[in-house]
Amino acid sequence: MEKKPVISIIGGTGNLGTGLAKRLAVKGYKVILGSRSEEKAEKSAAELKRALGVDLIHGMQNQEAVRGGDLIILTVVQSAHEAALKSLKEDLQGKILVDATARIKFPNPKPPQPPSAPRRAQTLLGEGVRVVAAFQNVAAQSFADLEKELESDVLVCADDREAARQVIDIIEELGMQAYYAGDLDAANTVEGLTALLVNINKYNDIHHASIQVTGSE
Amino acid sequence: MEKKPVISIIGGTGNLGTGLAKRLAVKGYKVILGSRSEEKAEKSAAELKRALGVDLIHGMQNQEAVRGGDLIILTVVQSAHEAALKSLKEDLQGKILVDATARIKFPNPKPPQPPSAPRRAQTLLGEGVRVVAAFQNVAAQSFADLEKELESDVLVCADDREAARQVIDIIEELGMQAYYAGDLDAANTVEGLTALLVNINKYNDIHHASIQVTGSE
Repeated sequence: MEKKPVISIIGGTGNLGTGLAKRLAVKGYKVILGSRSEEKAEKSAAELKRALGVDLIHGMQNQEAVRGGDLIILTVVQSAHEAALKSLKEDLQGKILVDATARIKFPNPKPPQPPSAPRRAQTLLGEGVRVVAAFQNVAAQSFADLEKELESDVLVCADDREAARQVIDIIEELGMQAYYAGDLDAANTVEGLTALLVNINKYNDIHHASIQVTGSE
Repeated sequence: MEKKPVISIIGGTGNLGTGLAKRLAVKGYKVILGSRSEEKAEKSAAELKRALGVDLIHGMQNQEAVRGGDLIILTVVQSAHEAALKSLKEDLQGKILVDATARIKFPNPKPPQPPSAPRRAQTLLGEGVRVVAAFQNVAAQSFADLEKELESDVLVCADDREAARQVIDIIEELGMQAYYAGDLDAANTVEGLTALLVNINKYNDIHHASIQVTGSE
Protein backbone atom coordinates (compact mmCIF):
# COMPACT_ATOMS: atom_id res chain seq x y z
CA MET A 1 0.00 0.00 0.00
CA GLU A 2 1.25 3.44 -0.86
CA LYS A 3 2.12 5.69 2.03
CA LYS A 4 -0.53 8.33 2.60
CA PRO A 5 0.65 11.93 2.27
CA VAL A 6 0.79 14.07 5.41
CA ILE A 7 -1.84 16.78 4.96
CA SER A 8 -1.41 20.21 6.49
CA ILE A 9 -4.33 22.59 6.77
CA ILE A 10 -3.39 26.25 6.89
CA GLY A 11 -5.91 28.37 8.76
CA GLY A 12 -6.91 24.97 9.99
CA THR A 13 -8.74 25.96 13.17
CA GLY A 14 -11.84 27.27 11.37
CA ASN A 15 -14.98 25.28 10.50
CA LEU A 16 -13.74 23.95 7.18
CA GLY A 17 -10.25 23.18 8.49
CA THR A 18 -11.33 21.24 11.56
CA GLY A 19 -14.06 19.47 9.61
CA LEU A 20 -11.60 18.34 6.95
CA ALA A 21 -9.10 17.32 9.63
CA LYS A 22 -11.67 15.04 11.24
CA ARG A 23 -12.70 13.42 7.98
CA LEU A 24 -9.07 12.89 6.95
CA ALA A 25 -7.92 11.52 10.31
CA VAL A 26 -10.66 8.90 10.49
CA LYS A 27 -9.43 7.67 7.10
CA GLY A 28 -5.93 7.27 8.49
CA TYR A 29 -4.29 10.46 7.24
CA LYS A 30 -1.83 12.24 9.46
CA VAL A 31 -3.06 15.83 9.62
CA ILE A 32 -1.28 18.98 10.77
CA LEU A 33 -3.55 21.85 11.75
CA GLY A 34 -1.83 25.15 11.08
CA SER A 35 -2.64 28.51 12.62
CA ARG A 36 -0.87 31.83 12.98
CA SER A 37 -0.94 31.03 16.68
CA GLU A 38 0.85 27.82 17.68
CA GLU A 39 -1.13 27.72 20.90
CA LYS A 40 -4.46 27.91 19.08
CA ALA A 41 -3.39 25.19 16.65
CA GLU A 42 -2.32 22.88 19.47
CA LYS A 43 -5.56 23.48 21.34
CA SER A 44 -7.70 22.70 18.27
CA ALA A 45 -5.65 19.59 17.53
CA ALA A 46 -5.96 18.37 21.12
CA GLU A 47 -9.73 18.82 21.05
CA LEU A 48 -10.05 16.90 17.81
CA LYS A 49 -7.81 14.10 19.05
CA ARG A 50 -9.89 13.77 22.19
CA ALA A 51 -13.15 13.80 20.25
CA LEU A 52 -11.99 11.21 17.71
CA GLY A 53 -9.81 9.05 19.92
CA VAL A 54 -7.03 9.04 17.34
CA ASP A 55 -3.49 10.39 17.58
CA LEU A 56 -3.13 11.55 13.98
CA ILE A 57 -3.80 15.28 14.36
CA HIS A 58 -1.13 17.76 15.38
CA GLY A 59 -1.16 21.53 15.78
CA MET A 60 1.63 23.82 14.60
CA GLN A 61 2.30 27.38 13.59
CA ASN A 62 1.42 27.78 9.86
CA GLN A 63 5.01 27.79 8.57
CA GLU A 64 5.93 24.66 10.49
CA ALA A 65 2.71 23.05 9.28
CA VAL A 66 3.69 23.69 5.65
CA ARG A 67 7.17 22.28 6.23
CA GLY A 68 5.76 19.14 7.80
CA GLY A 69 3.12 18.45 5.14
CA ASP A 70 3.25 16.74 1.75
CA LEU A 71 0.02 18.31 0.57
CA ILE A 72 -1.20 21.63 1.90
CA ILE A 73 -4.81 22.81 2.10
CA LEU A 74 -5.41 26.56 2.45
CA THR A 75 -8.59 27.44 4.35
CA VAL A 76 -7.82 30.92 5.65
CA VAL A 77 -10.49 33.63 5.52
CA GLN A 78 -10.52 35.47 2.18
CA SER A 79 -9.04 38.64 3.64
CA ALA A 80 -5.93 36.70 4.76
CA HIS A 81 -5.40 34.92 1.42
CA GLU A 82 -2.67 37.06 -0.10
CA ALA A 83 -0.73 37.63 3.12
CA ALA A 84 -0.76 33.91 3.96
CA LEU A 85 0.54 33.00 0.51
CA LYS A 86 3.32 35.57 0.65
CA SER A 87 4.50 34.42 4.07
CA LEU A 88 4.46 30.73 3.07
CA LYS A 89 5.76 31.03 -0.50
CA GLU A 90 9.24 29.61 0.09
CA ASP A 91 8.07 26.67 2.17
CA LEU A 92 5.35 25.75 -0.33
CA GLN A 93 7.80 25.19 -3.20
CA GLY A 94 7.62 21.66 -4.59
CA LYS A 95 4.26 20.91 -2.96
CA ILE A 96 0.63 20.77 -4.00
CA LEU A 97 -1.46 23.59 -2.57
CA VAL A 98 -5.20 23.01 -2.41
CA ASP A 99 -6.79 26.46 -2.31
CA ALA A 100 -10.32 26.52 -0.87
CA THR A 101 -10.69 30.28 -1.09
CA ALA A 102 -13.90 31.79 -2.49
CA ARG A 103 -14.09 35.57 -2.54
CA ILE A 104 -17.57 36.62 -1.45
CA LYS A 105 -18.73 40.14 -0.81
CA PHE A 106 -21.35 40.38 1.91
CA PRO A 107 -24.17 41.23 2.27
CA ASN A 108 -24.81 41.19 -1.50
CA PRO A 109 -22.63 38.58 -3.16
CA LYS A 110 -21.81 39.25 -6.81
CA PRO A 111 -19.77 37.22 -9.31
CA PRO A 112 -16.14 37.81 -8.27
CA GLN A 113 -13.69 39.60 -10.57
CA PRO A 114 -11.19 37.44 -12.42
CA PRO A 115 -8.51 36.28 -11.99
CA SER A 116 -9.79 33.64 -9.57
CA ALA A 117 -8.30 33.44 -6.08
CA PRO A 118 -6.52 30.14 -6.91
CA ARG A 119 -5.15 31.71 -10.13
CA ARG A 120 -3.84 34.63 -8.05
CA ALA A 121 -2.23 32.07 -5.72
CA GLN A 122 -0.58 30.27 -8.65
CA THR A 123 0.79 33.54 -10.04
CA LEU A 124 2.10 34.63 -6.66
CA LEU A 125 3.69 31.27 -5.81
CA GLY A 126 5.22 30.56 -9.22
CA GLU A 127 5.63 27.32 -11.13
CA GLY A 128 7.27 25.47 -8.27
CA VAL A 129 3.91 25.05 -6.55
CA ARG A 130 1.02 23.16 -8.11
CA VAL A 131 -2.19 24.94 -7.10
CA VAL A 132 -5.48 23.04 -7.10
CA ALA A 133 -8.82 24.73 -6.37
CA ALA A 134 -11.27 22.65 -4.32
CA PHE A 135 -13.86 22.81 -1.52
CA GLN A 136 -15.16 26.29 -2.49
CA ASN A 137 -18.76 25.09 -2.54
CA VAL A 138 -18.99 22.69 0.37
CA ALA A 139 -20.90 23.69 3.48
CA ALA A 140 -18.18 23.58 6.16
CA GLN A 141 -20.75 22.59 8.77
CA SER A 142 -21.50 19.35 6.93
CA PHE A 143 -17.97 18.07 7.59
CA ALA A 144 -18.17 18.38 11.34
CA ASP A 145 -20.69 15.63 12.05
CA LEU A 146 -19.00 12.36 11.11
CA GLU A 147 -22.32 10.50 11.31
CA LYS A 148 -23.64 12.62 8.49
CA GLU A 149 -23.09 11.51 4.93
CA LEU A 150 -21.49 14.19 2.79
CA GLU A 151 -24.01 15.34 0.21
CA SER A 152 -21.98 17.85 -1.72
CA ASP A 153 -19.79 17.12 -4.70
CA VAL A 154 -16.50 18.91 -5.13
CA LEU A 155 -15.50 20.77 -8.29
CA VAL A 156 -11.73 20.62 -8.73
CA CYS A 157 -9.83 23.07 -10.95
CA ALA A 158 -6.12 23.04 -11.74
CA ASP A 159 -3.72 23.71 -14.56
CA ASP A 160 -1.90 20.49 -13.63
CA ARG A 161 -4.17 17.53 -14.27
CA GLU A 162 -1.95 15.11 -12.33
CA ALA A 163 -2.10 17.29 -9.21
CA ALA A 164 -5.88 17.49 -9.63
CA ARG A 165 -6.01 13.69 -9.89
CA GLN A 166 -4.20 13.29 -6.55
CA VAL A 167 -6.59 15.69 -4.85
CA ILE A 168 -9.64 14.03 -6.41
CA ASP A 169 -8.47 10.64 -5.11
CA ILE A 170 -8.21 11.98 -1.57
CA ILE A 171 -11.62 13.68 -1.75
CA GLU A 172 -13.24 10.51 -3.02
CA GLU A 173 -11.65 8.58 -0.14
CA LEU A 174 -13.56 10.93 2.17
CA GLY A 175 -16.82 9.79 0.59
CA MET A 176 -17.48 12.67 -1.79
CA GLN A 177 -17.66 12.74 -5.56
CA ALA A 178 -15.10 15.05 -7.11
CA TYR A 179 -14.98 16.28 -10.70
CA TYR A 180 -12.21 17.93 -12.66
CA ALA A 181 -13.90 21.07 -13.98
CA GLY A 182 -11.17 22.99 -15.78
CA ASP A 183 -8.08 25.09 -15.20
CA LEU A 184 -7.49 27.71 -12.52
CA ASP A 185 -9.38 30.34 -14.55
CA ALA A 186 -12.48 28.16 -14.36
CA ALA A 187 -12.21 28.45 -10.58
CA ASN A 188 -13.59 31.97 -10.92
CA THR A 189 -16.98 30.42 -11.68
CA VAL A 190 -16.60 28.01 -8.76
CA GLU A 191 -16.05 31.01 -6.49
CA GLY A 192 -19.09 32.69 -8.03
CA LEU A 193 -21.10 29.56 -7.33
CA THR A 194 -20.37 30.03 -3.63
CA ALA A 195 -21.99 33.47 -3.93
CA LEU A 196 -25.02 31.88 -5.61
CA LEU A 197 -25.23 29.34 -2.77
CA VAL A 198 -25.25 32.19 -0.26
CA ASN A 199 -28.19 33.67 -2.18
CA ILE A 200 -29.92 30.30 -2.41
CA ASN A 201 -29.66 29.92 1.38
CA LYS A 202 -31.03 33.42 1.82
CA TYR A 203 -33.97 33.33 -0.56
CA ASN A 204 -35.16 29.72 -0.47
CA ASP A 205 -36.21 27.28 2.26
CA ILE A 206 -32.83 25.67 2.47
CA HIS A 207 -29.74 25.74 4.71
CA HIS A 208 -26.13 24.80 3.99
CA ALA A 209 -26.85 24.70 0.25
CA SER A 210 -24.25 22.99 -1.90
CA ILE A 211 -24.34 21.18 -5.23
CA GLN A 212 -24.22 17.71 -6.66
CA VAL A 213 -23.39 16.92 -10.26
CA THR A 214 -26.09 14.90 -12.03
CA GLY A 215 -25.89 13.11 -15.35
CA SER A 216 -25.58 9.67 -16.86
CA GLU A 217 -22.48 7.50 -17.06
CA MET B 1 -58.26 27.54 -11.21
CA GLU B 2 -56.14 30.32 -12.64
CA LYS B 3 -55.77 30.37 -16.39
CA LYS B 4 -52.38 29.10 -17.47
CA PRO B 5 -50.23 31.58 -19.42
CA VAL B 6 -49.58 30.87 -23.09
CA ILE B 7 -45.87 30.18 -23.39
CA SER B 8 -43.95 31.06 -26.53
CA ILE B 9 -40.52 29.62 -27.16
CA ILE B 10 -38.30 31.70 -29.44
CA GLY B 11 -35.78 29.64 -31.35
CA GLY B 12 -38.11 26.90 -30.29
CA THR B 13 -37.19 24.26 -32.84
CA GLY B 14 -33.88 23.36 -31.18
CA ASN B 15 -33.28 20.66 -28.55
CA LEU B 16 -34.08 22.79 -25.54
CA GLY B 17 -37.08 24.46 -27.18
CA THR B 18 -38.80 21.28 -28.33
CA GLY B 19 -37.97 19.53 -25.06
CA LEU B 20 -39.52 22.34 -23.04
CA ALA B 21 -42.53 22.46 -25.37
CA LYS B 22 -43.20 18.76 -24.74
CA ARG B 23 -42.91 19.06 -20.98
CA LEU B 24 -45.14 22.14 -20.91
CA ALA B 25 -47.81 20.73 -23.23
CA VAL B 26 -48.24 17.53 -21.23
CA LYS B 27 -48.91 19.76 -18.21
CA GLY B 28 -51.69 21.53 -20.11
CA TYR B 29 -49.86 24.66 -21.22
CA LYS B 30 -50.60 26.08 -24.67
CA VAL B 31 -47.19 26.46 -26.32
CA ILE B 32 -46.16 28.43 -29.38
CA LEU B 33 -42.95 27.32 -31.03
CA GLY B 34 -41.28 30.28 -32.71
CA SER B 35 -38.68 30.16 -35.44
CA ARG B 36 -37.30 32.62 -37.96
CA SER B 37 -38.94 30.31 -40.51
CA GLU B 38 -42.68 29.90 -40.13
CA GLU B 39 -42.53 26.68 -42.13
CA LYS B 40 -39.91 25.19 -39.83
CA ALA B 41 -41.90 26.20 -36.75
CA GLU B 42 -45.09 24.63 -38.12
CA LYS B 43 -43.25 21.44 -39.02
CA SER B 44 -41.72 21.11 -35.53
CA ALA B 45 -45.07 21.82 -33.90
CA ALA B 46 -46.84 19.26 -36.07
CA GLU B 47 -44.26 16.61 -35.18
CA LEU B 48 -44.61 17.28 -31.48
CA LYS B 49 -48.41 17.26 -31.64
CA ARG B 50 -48.32 13.92 -33.40
CA ALA B 51 -45.83 12.47 -30.92
CA LEU B 52 -47.74 13.65 -27.87
CA GLY B 53 -51.30 13.29 -29.14
CA VAL B 54 -52.17 16.76 -27.85
CA ASP B 55 -53.31 19.84 -29.74
CA LEU B 56 -51.62 22.45 -27.57
CA ILE B 57 -48.51 23.21 -29.62
CA HIS B 58 -48.49 25.68 -32.48
CA GLY B 59 -45.75 26.91 -34.78
CA MET B 60 -45.30 30.54 -35.81
CA GLN B 61 -42.69 32.96 -37.04
CA ASN B 62 -40.82 34.40 -33.99
CA GLN B 63 -42.54 37.80 -33.99
CA GLU B 64 -46.02 36.26 -34.15
CA ALA B 65 -45.01 33.84 -31.43
CA VAL B 66 -44.06 36.73 -29.11
CA ARG B 67 -47.34 38.53 -29.84
CA GLY B 68 -49.34 35.39 -29.07
CA GLY B 69 -47.56 34.51 -25.83
CA ASP B 70 -47.96 35.70 -22.23
CA LEU B 71 -44.54 34.49 -21.17
CA ILE B 72 -41.68 34.16 -23.63
CA ILE B 73 -38.73 31.78 -23.40
CA LEU B 74 -35.65 32.61 -25.47
CA THR B 75 -33.65 29.55 -26.54
CA VAL B 76 -31.83 30.81 -29.62
CA VAL B 77 -28.16 29.92 -30.17
CA GLN B 78 -25.83 32.35 -28.42
CA SER B 79 -24.69 33.97 -31.68
CA ALA B 80 -28.30 34.97 -32.46
CA HIS B 81 -29.02 36.42 -29.00
CA GLU B 82 -28.56 40.11 -29.66
CA ALA B 83 -30.18 40.13 -33.10
CA ALA B 84 -33.22 38.22 -31.83
CA LEU B 85 -33.70 40.65 -28.94
CA LYS B 86 -33.40 43.69 -31.21
CA SER B 87 -35.94 42.36 -33.68
CA LEU B 88 -38.42 41.40 -30.95
CA LYS B 89 -37.94 44.36 -28.61
CA GLU B 90 -41.23 46.13 -29.33
CA ASP B 91 -43.37 43.02 -29.12
CA LEU B 92 -41.76 41.90 -25.86
CA GLN B 93 -42.82 45.04 -23.95
CA GLY B 94 -44.99 44.23 -20.96
CA LYS B 95 -44.06 40.55 -20.90
CA ILE B 96 -41.74 38.30 -18.96
CA LEU B 97 -38.78 37.07 -21.00
CA VAL B 98 -37.06 33.91 -19.76
CA ASP B 99 -33.55 34.01 -21.19
CA ALA B 100 -31.85 30.59 -21.36
CA THR B 101 -28.71 31.89 -23.05
CA ALA B 102 -25.30 30.79 -21.81
CA ARG B 103 -22.30 32.14 -23.67
CA ILE B 104 -19.77 29.34 -24.09
CA LYS B 105 -16.61 29.50 -26.13
CA PHE B 106 -15.66 26.20 -27.70
CA PRO B 107 -13.48 24.18 -27.61
CA ASN B 108 -12.06 25.62 -24.36
CA PRO B 109 -14.84 27.15 -22.30
CA LYS B 110 -13.77 29.93 -19.95
CA PRO B 111 -15.81 31.99 -17.46
CA PRO B 112 -17.77 34.45 -19.64
CA GLN B 113 -17.20 38.18 -19.40
CA PRO B 114 -19.77 40.22 -17.51
CA PRO B 115 -22.35 41.57 -18.01
CA SER B 116 -24.29 38.32 -18.22
CA ALA B 117 -26.31 37.56 -21.35
CA PRO B 118 -29.62 38.06 -19.48
CA ARG B 119 -28.30 41.39 -18.08
CA ARG B 120 -27.45 42.42 -21.67
CA ALA B 121 -30.99 41.43 -22.65
CA GLN B 122 -32.50 43.51 -19.82
CA THR B 123 -30.42 46.55 -20.81
CA LEU B 124 -31.33 46.20 -24.47
CA LEU B 125 -35.05 45.65 -23.86
CA GLY B 126 -35.52 48.32 -21.19
CA GLU B 127 -37.66 48.34 -18.08
CA GLY B 128 -40.85 47.38 -19.87
CA VAL B 129 -39.70 43.77 -20.09
CA ARG B 130 -39.00 41.66 -17.02
CA VAL B 131 -36.05 39.41 -17.85
CA VAL B 132 -35.56 36.17 -15.92
CA ALA B 133 -32.53 33.90 -16.44
CA ALA B 134 -33.26 30.17 -16.30
CA PHE B 135 -32.41 26.81 -17.90
CA GLN B 136 -28.74 27.68 -18.57
CA ASN B 137 -27.50 24.49 -16.89
CA VAL B 138 -30.03 21.88 -17.92
CA ALA B 139 -29.03 19.19 -20.38
CA ALA B 140 -31.47 19.80 -23.24
CA GLN B 141 -31.46 16.11 -24.10
CA SER B 142 -32.95 15.25 -20.72
CA PHE B 143 -36.18 17.06 -21.59
CA ALA B 144 -36.90 15.07 -24.72
CA ASP B 145 -37.70 11.72 -23.14
CA LEU B 146 -40.90 12.21 -21.15
CA GLU B 147 -40.44 8.87 -19.41
CA LYS B 148 -37.27 10.17 -17.87
CA GLU B 149 -37.41 12.01 -14.58
CA LEU B 150 -35.70 15.39 -14.71
CA GLU B 151 -32.63 15.27 -12.51
CA SER B 152 -31.36 18.79 -12.85
CA ASP B 153 -32.34 21.73 -10.69
CA VAL B 154 -32.80 25.16 -12.22
CA LEU B 155 -31.07 28.28 -10.94
CA VAL B 156 -33.27 31.32 -11.57
CA CYS B 157 -31.90 34.87 -11.59
CA ALA B 158 -33.86 38.08 -12.01
CA ASP B 159 -33.95 41.66 -10.77
CA ASP B 160 -37.72 41.29 -10.36
CA ARG B 161 -38.47 38.73 -7.64
CA GLU B 162 -42.15 38.45 -8.58
CA ALA B 163 -41.30 37.57 -12.18
CA ALA B 164 -38.79 35.01 -10.88
CA ARG B 165 -41.54 33.55 -8.65
CA GLN B 166 -43.86 33.03 -11.64
CA VAL B 167 -41.11 31.28 -13.59
CA ILE B 168 -40.14 29.12 -10.59
CA ASP B 169 -43.76 28.01 -10.20
CA ILE B 170 -43.91 26.88 -13.83
CA ILE B 171 -40.57 25.05 -13.61
CA GLU B 172 -41.67 23.25 -10.47
CA GLU B 173 -44.88 22.20 -12.22
CA LEU B 174 -42.63 20.46 -14.77
CA GLY B 175 -41.16 18.37 -11.96
CA MET B 176 -37.92 20.22 -11.36
CA GLN B 177 -36.67 22.09 -8.31
CA ALA B 178 -35.98 25.75 -9.01
CA TYR B 179 -34.10 28.18 -6.78
CA TYR B 180 -33.92 31.96 -6.86
CA ALA B 181 -30.16 32.58 -6.97
CA GLY B 182 -29.79 36.35 -7.30
CA ASP B 183 -30.17 39.21 -9.72
CA LEU B 184 -29.29 39.28 -13.42
CA ASP B 185 -25.61 39.94 -12.62
CA ALA B 186 -25.51 36.63 -10.75
CA ALA B 187 -26.51 34.98 -14.02
CA ASN B 188 -22.94 35.48 -15.19
CA THR B 189 -21.91 32.71 -12.81
CA VAL B 190 -24.80 30.54 -14.00
CA GLU B 191 -23.48 30.94 -17.57
CA GLY B 192 -20.00 30.08 -16.33
CA LEU B 193 -21.39 26.98 -14.68
CA THR B 194 -22.51 25.78 -18.11
CA ALA B 195 -18.89 26.05 -19.19
CA LEU B 196 -17.83 24.01 -16.16
CA LEU B 197 -20.43 21.38 -17.05
CA VAL B 198 -18.98 21.16 -20.57
CA ASN B 199 -15.59 20.52 -18.96
CA ILE B 200 -17.06 18.00 -16.52
CA ASN B 201 -18.58 16.08 -19.44
CA LYS B 202 -15.25 16.17 -21.24
CA TYR B 203 -12.92 15.15 -18.42
CA ASN B 204 -14.99 12.78 -16.27
CA ASP B 205 -17.01 9.61 -16.92
CA ILE B 206 -20.28 11.45 -17.18
CA HIS B 207 -22.67 12.65 -19.91
CA HIS B 208 -25.29 15.40 -19.86
CA ALA B 209 -23.88 16.76 -16.61
CA SER B 210 -26.08 19.18 -14.73
CA ILE B 211 -26.45 20.15 -11.08
CA GLN B 212 -28.74 19.62 -8.14
CA VAL B 213 -28.81 21.80 -5.09
CA THR B 214 -28.27 19.91 -1.83
CA GLY B 215 -28.80 21.08 1.73
CA SER B 216 -31.16 20.78 4.65
CA GLU B 217 -34.54 22.41 5.05
